[in-house]
Amino acid sequence: MSATRFTYLGPEGTFTEAALRTLPESATRELVPMVSVPATLDAVRSGEASGALVPIENSVEGGVTATVDELAKGSPLMIYREVVLPIAFALLARPGTTLTDVKTVTGHPVAQPQVRNWLAAHLPDAVWESAASNADGARLVQEGRYDAAFAGEFAAATYGLTPLVTDIHDAANAETRFVLVGRPARPSAPTGADKTSVVIWLGDDRPGGLLELLQEFKVRGVNLMRIESRPTGRGIGDYCFSVDAEGHITDRRMGEALMGLKRISPQVRFLGSYPRASVAPSDVGAPVPGTSDDDFVAASDWLTRCQDGRF
Amino acid sequence: MSATRFTYLGPEGTFTEAALRTLPESATRELVPMVSVPATLDAVRSGEASGALVPIENSVEGGVTATVDELAKGSPLMIYREVVLPIAFALLARPGTTLTDVKTVTGHPVAQPQVRNWLAAHLPDAVWESAASNADGARLVQEGRYDAAFAGEFAAATYGLTPLVTDIHDAANAETRFVLVGRPARPSAPTGADKTSVVIWLGDDRPGGLLELLQEFKVRGVNLMRIESRPTGRGIGDYCFSVDAEGHITDRRMGEALMGLKRISPQVRFLGSYPRASVAPSDVGAPVPGTSDDDFVAASDWLTRCQDGRF
Amino acid sequence: MSATRFTYLGPEGTFTEAALRTLPESATRELVPMVSVPATLDAVRSGEASGALVPIENSVEGGVTATVDELAKGSPLMIYREVVLPIAFALLARPGTTLTDVKTVTGHPVAQPQVRNWLAAHLPDAVWESAASNADGARLVQEGRYDAAFAGEFAAATYGLTPLVTDIHDAANAETRFVLVGRPARPSAPTGADKTSVVIWLGDDRPGGLLELLQEFKVRGVNLMRIESRPTGRGIGDYCFSVDAEGHITDRRMGEALMGLKRISPQVRFLGSYPRASVAPSDVGAPVPGTSDDDFVAASDWLTRCQDGRF
Amino acid sequence: MSATRFTYLGPEGTFTEAALRTLPESATRELVPMVSVPATLDAVRSGEASGALVPIENSVEGGVTATVDELAKGSPLMIYREVVLPIAFALLARPGTTLTDVKTVTGHPVAQPQVRNWLAAHLPDAVWESAASNADGARLVQEGRYDAAFAGEFAAATYGLTPLVTDIHDAANAETRFVLVGRPARPSAPTGADKTSVVIWLGDDRPGGLLELLQEFKVRGVNLMRIESRPTGRGIGDYCFSVDAEGHITDRRMGEALMGLKRISPQVRFLGSYPRASVAPSDVGAPVPGTSDDDFVAASDWLTRCQDGRF
Repeated sequence: MSATRFTYLGPEGTFTEAALRTLPESATRELVPMVSVPATLDAVRSGEASGALVPIENSVEGGVTATVDELAKGSPLMIYREVVLPIAFALLARPGTTLTDVKTVTGHPVAQPQVRNWLAAHLPDAVWESAASNADGARLVQEGRYDAAFAGEFAAATYGLTPLVTDIHDAANAETRFVLVGRPARPSAPTGADKTSVVIWLGDDRPGGLLELLQEFKVRGVNLMRIESRPTGRGIGDYCFSVDAEGHITDRRMGEALMGLKRISPQVRFLGSYPRASVAPSDVGAPVPGTSDDDFVAASDWLTRCQDGRF
Repeated sequence: MSATRFTYLGPEGTFTEAALRTLPESATRELVPMVSVPATLDAVRSGEASGALVPIENSVEGGVTATVDELAKGSPLMIYREVVLPIAFALLARPGTTLTDVKTVTGHPVAQPQVRNWLAAHLPDAVWESAASNADGARLVQEGRYDAAFAGEFAAATYGLTPLVTDIHDAANAETRFVLVGRPARPSAPTGADKTSVVIWLGDDRPGGLLELLQEFKVRGVNLMRIESRPTGRGIGDYCFSVDAEGHITDRRMGEALMGLKRISPQVRFLGSYPRASVAPSDVGAPVPGTSDDDFVAASDWLTRCQDGRF
Repeated sequence: MSATRFTYLGPEGTFTEAALRTLPESATRELVPMVSVPATLDAVRSGEASGALVPIENSVEGGVTATVDELAKGSPLMIYREVVLPIAFALLARPGTTLTDVKTVTGHPVAQPQVRNWLAAHLPDAVWESAASNADGARLVQEGRYDAAFAGEFAAATYGLTPLVTDIHDAANAETRFVLVGRPARPSAPTGADKTSVVIWLGDDRPGGLLELLQEFKVRGVNLMRIESRPTGRGIGDYCFSVDAEGHITDRRMGEALMGLKRISPQVRFLGSYPRASVAPSDVGAPVPGTSDDDFVAASDWLTRCQDGRF
Repeated sequence: MSATRFTYLGPEGTFTEAALRTLPESATRELVPMVSVPATLDAVRSGEASGALVPIENSVEGGVTATVDELAKGSPLMIYREVVLPIAFALLARPGTTLTDVKTVTGHPVAQPQVRNWLAAHLPDAVWESAASNADGARLVQEGRYDAAFAGEFAAATYGLTPLVTDIHDAANAETRFVLVGRPARPSAPTGADKTSVVIWLGDDRPGGLLELLQEFKVRGVNLMRIESRPTGRGIGDYCFSVDAEGHITDRRMGEALMGLKRISPQVRFLGSYPRASVAPSDVGAPVPGTSDDDFVAASDWLTRCQDGRF
């Protein structure tokens, strides 16, 4: 096992690497690019790395299904940190290329819908072909297979390319969320602005299961931040739900909600409690009245007194 | 304080006395009739009696509001037992009276709607006047003020009267539920067929409070057996709810539901967990899947493992 | 049939008569006291009267069960108006009586809890006996059977009595609500501050029926103002619910909620839509967003366009 | 406009083409492969084609986001039919290739997780590179760029390849659902086993919006078959929901649920009501009691009678 190694979804020059480098601890780790999300995470499972950074959600494209699905199965992993990175593409080309020279462009399939409008406006005749990653697209441009690639501007140096255009993004505020994943251990202490991730399967015998699932959170005053349905692989119409909820597993309301889910679900997988990325204090709402830890403790004391006949 | 004295809503000869005598422990107690529900209960509060039997619900007339309200306020009391008695009236008269002699009848106001149809059919011209209790009506007949009284057949001997007609009850299956009340102490152990009573106030700041209240029970799989709205006395439109729920306060699902209510309500008053009266085993349903004590323990263990990172 | 006669719960001198006299139309009607709520309402059913005024709710004692139950059964009736009257009692005695002379007091059983504290403070030794009505209590004082009666001050003249004390009411803001009942007809037009009353039975086959019932209102944004459980008479544990909701049956949200109840309930009885008594404009909230008549019409238009493929 | 042309997500030889050919009407249409989902659908929007077949959901990979997102925006389209196709891959190679010769494999990124286990077991050392489509992978094998491609067996002839292995699918019962899309028009008549698709945005001002959304369906007894969250593109944490519900827009319960959604949502987009693919009669449940069209009509009649005072 190597506590000094972090893997990330490679190759070098991806947004994932850029996200990883925003974490202070990355400065003291060996950062190893991997060819796929499963490979990135399996390195943690096997002990070759102590952490792995993978993208999990994009504000334009939605959940990164490889990550969401991989965390839901196999031997358990846990999320320890999240990083949110604003996404803007540069159009990278070999030195000397001008915009009018560009007939073929490449990039990761996820990049395409984020630059589609820009392409239609500026390179309406350019032919798009997908690459395995944005960085891989840059490599293919370096090799001369395509004229230009959409990638992070930081990838230019790695592949000896020049940015023809920068800050390309069809949607304002496009951003990608990445998570730092490790083997299960005690979650870090609550910071007051935390997030808890779980995957919840619904039993066949509970029609209206999604509504019940949401009620378990609602009754305890726990806000949902993200809910994503994913196929279980058992046929169309059979889903599990990947959920991010506001709060920490050591918050009483969160603990009770999770136990409620555990009781009604055939399977719940805890994926971690970790600090919310870049959250403004104003985004952290006061808990719903009656759901603070103090309220839970007071109610528990009251119950004990009732059970003892002291009231 | 007298551990050997039970009070009951008198006078002698009421259904309440009959209900009290069905309890084995009544054989070894001094049974003292009181003039009103408050007086009956205050004797327990003051320590003059260790228990008090009062009617709480009638299948025709509904909640006995004096009892429901009295339990909701003042110094706390607890329900330890319930007794359900089928209700049938006898028409009692002085010896020698025949049915055709009866021009005036009396009885407790609650008795009237339970014999109204019988009266219309058999004594259409008789004038009804209310008495303070059925037994008091019998006394007034003894004194000659009325010709006949509706009361329990068992009251005839006490007042030197004769039953002209017996088994009078407009509604089939009419019954009254009584509760044995004492000062707060540890509730008796669960029997597997128990009932828990609480009074819940709704806060002004939670519109839709009744729905929230019901959700607290529903999410934990606790069935409601009775819910009765009562005015709080703070003006029309301001209610509290008297609730009987299936289960015992030491059941995990009940405990969690009560704590949930405690957290969302400005006030919750626990009124006791006690065996359900005369319940057929077939009436005790299996708990909703996921709500047994074992399910709660398993979920709690799982939460601890998640919090410790051992999974 | 007599369109010129109103019945009311008598005898003369009750609060009900006082409430009836607040209605302008009472000035042109013959006002006939009746001996009981059923008799008062049956006079309307039979056509002997065109309207009947009965008490339905008291802020201290809760629902007037005789009225609630009588409206729920028998041939249908409808509520056309409500009157809310502040309740304050006078202690009436024969001329010449002083407070220290009062050893026995009487009044309607419902009055007792509203003057209990006053009695304890001012006449701790007086014996209470119940009368059939407050006015009847006054009559019994006139006849010399009791020393004083709790009744409305306006009853003094009728029975030749003198008020010893006035404005007695344990609870601040005590009030009673009365309803003017007639045979079914088209409800009066909405005023913008209306109330709709219904009685709803729950089917045996819908566990959690009360929660479902509340959801039918909630989903359409209809606020409940009162909910009262009443036994159906089919045994303990079998209830129906008497409900007042904010709005008029011609409001779209109310209509849809009522139809929803009709579909899930074995029986729903409409009891009328009528103006709310003495409501301040500030008490009439804006409807929940999305539940105004305009919102309903817009949604209906949209549905039609979708069904026609025009969008 | 061409009523005789159907577009589909190409190139030739994709599963989408195979799905399209299962529709009888495809025999009389010109079938035109397009390079992307947007292009396939835009041909319908512009009138160049009267219908378009695109994949929308895969039992292993989940929603096809390009399709889900494209239907949610731009000028409105409608779904008229769905086709569900079992998915099994063939490994296609140039004639003469043996399994041991295969060092590089390709296929659509969506194919990879569906053959990953097979690859690990049979070609553990083969390097995977993604192609723009399965058919495109076959073309790249034909051109000699890779040794073998995962694609539908039917694609072999088109690209002059030979199936080395057939019926490859990691998950049992893997299937893909495709939809036939056209411009809005009146939906086809209900068949008794229909499905309705909508996209629903949640307003910022309705916390707990997803739960409210589900309640709109639940209260009317409409079952959900699929719910998929998609980013709105306005930043992480802002979602809309793509929903398939059981029933037809002309069913009264569906119509009322859709109107309810329309009222509480800033935007609802109707995507069509169409027959469910290959549904066994046993899969079509009886409606929840109280939600049939007859129940709606009866409730509507009752409401009218109440509004008219005839009951």
